[in-house]
Amino acid sequence: MNVLIIYAHPYPASLNAALKDRAVSVLQDAGHMVKVSDLYAMKFKAVLDQNDFLKPCNRDYFSVPGEQMAGVRNGTLAPDIQAEMHKVKWADLLIFQFPIWWSSTPAILKGWIDRVLAQGFAVNLAEGKLYQEGLLSGKKALISTTAGSPPEFYSEGGPHGDINHHLMSLWHNTIEFCGMEVVPTFYVFNVGVMDDLQVNAELERYEEYLRLL
Amino acid sequence: MNVLIIYAHPYPASLNAALKDRAVSVLQDAGHMVKVSDLYAMKFKAVLDQNDFLKPCNRDYFSVPGEQMAGVRNGTLAPDIQAEMHKVKWADLLIFQFPIWWSSTPAILKGWIDRVLAQGFAVNLAEGKLYQEGLLSGKKALISTTAGSPPEFYSEGGPHGDINHHLMSLWHNTIEFCGMEVVPTFYVFNVGVMDDLQVNAELERYEEYLRLL
Repeated sequence: MNVLIIYAHPYPASLNAALKDRAVSVLQDAGHMVKVSDLYAMKFKAVLDQNDFLKPCNRDYFSVPGEQMAGVRNGTLAPDIQAEMHKVKWADLLIFQFPIWWSSTPAILKGWIDRVLAQGFAVNLAEGKLYQEGLLSGKKALISTTAGSPPEFYSEGGPHGDINHHLMSLWHNTIEFCGMEVVPTFYVFNVGVMDDLQVNAELERYEEYLRLL
Repeated sequence: MNVLIIYAHPYPASLNAALKDRAVSVLQDAGHMVKVSDLYAMKFKAVLDQNDFLKPCNRDYFSVPGEQMAGVRNGTLAPDIQAEMHKVKWADLLIFQFPIWWSSTPAILKGWIDRVLAQGFAVNLAEGKLYQEGLLSGKKALISTTAGSPPEFYSEGGPHGDINHHLMSLWHNTIEFCGMEVVPTFYVFNVGVMDDLQVNAELERYEEYLRLL
């Protein structure tokens, strides 16, 4: 299958980078095609704004969904958005690889979602193309993420609450909203206090997880 | 009191802009001091990266919390971060004004959170300064937000789920995490299909809400 890894971490020696690299090698070894959108390395523009629309359809009233619909229809979205859309179209599986910051995605990844999963490309609300009818149906998506906190902090009843609950805006209201099937999330907790042996064990665990996909 | 409005919408004729403007006038009329961080107008840098740290304490291993702690301690964070921190210190009440995109904040606002609410400034995990002990305790924060969907879509059992649940990563894991007290969220639903009368009614409702704060 074709796999697109959307990777968001500012540091190439991070555990997130190692997880991304491990996924590339494991998936390629298994005969899959892999592309990586390394958002930091690409200096991906995080902020959805009027520059995203090369020929605004309405200069008096800027409506994000309206401009996105027109931009998709007319091929007048900014080139970096279109390039990402091509990769998404190509992919059978998307992997979102990122550290949990503030119980959510880093801004650069949120910007990728805001800009790339445009109305008319990923969903079409006017035509009811969402959830099971979402325009990206047939694809799967996996969240692979790391947290500094121990798992008990991010559990039901823990101080932060259940992390799976916090990431619902990504796995349900984004991935499933666009019609994609969610693969169970891969979590690594306690990042930053692990020694090399523990890091390697987590990379091995991810490798096994990916081999069973 | 001193009020800081952190405002994130790309279009000055949006309902979010009108809500922000209404808050400024109502709060000033009531004798409060108001500052606005208009993130789009400021072209606020959304992406936390190594350029945020003018004198990295560790060039071999980039740790976000470690660099933030050192940057706060030594006054070596990027000037735009320090300017926002000064406003936060000054404020008794923070108002987050933004449209809900993907059941969450726009990337530019997430970037403000990632960069400004730094370790050592807003929380200090090593010293247990979080939640009730958070470094921003004594302040309050209000989420004022708009959604295109009708409220029943964003309710328990609705297709998107309870919006208050999705925003928990902001009101609990961000605002309360830093020690601030949460003021009940102000929601406007059905944005984009309202006529002028309905828009005005929502602005009046916000005005009344703010007067009772």
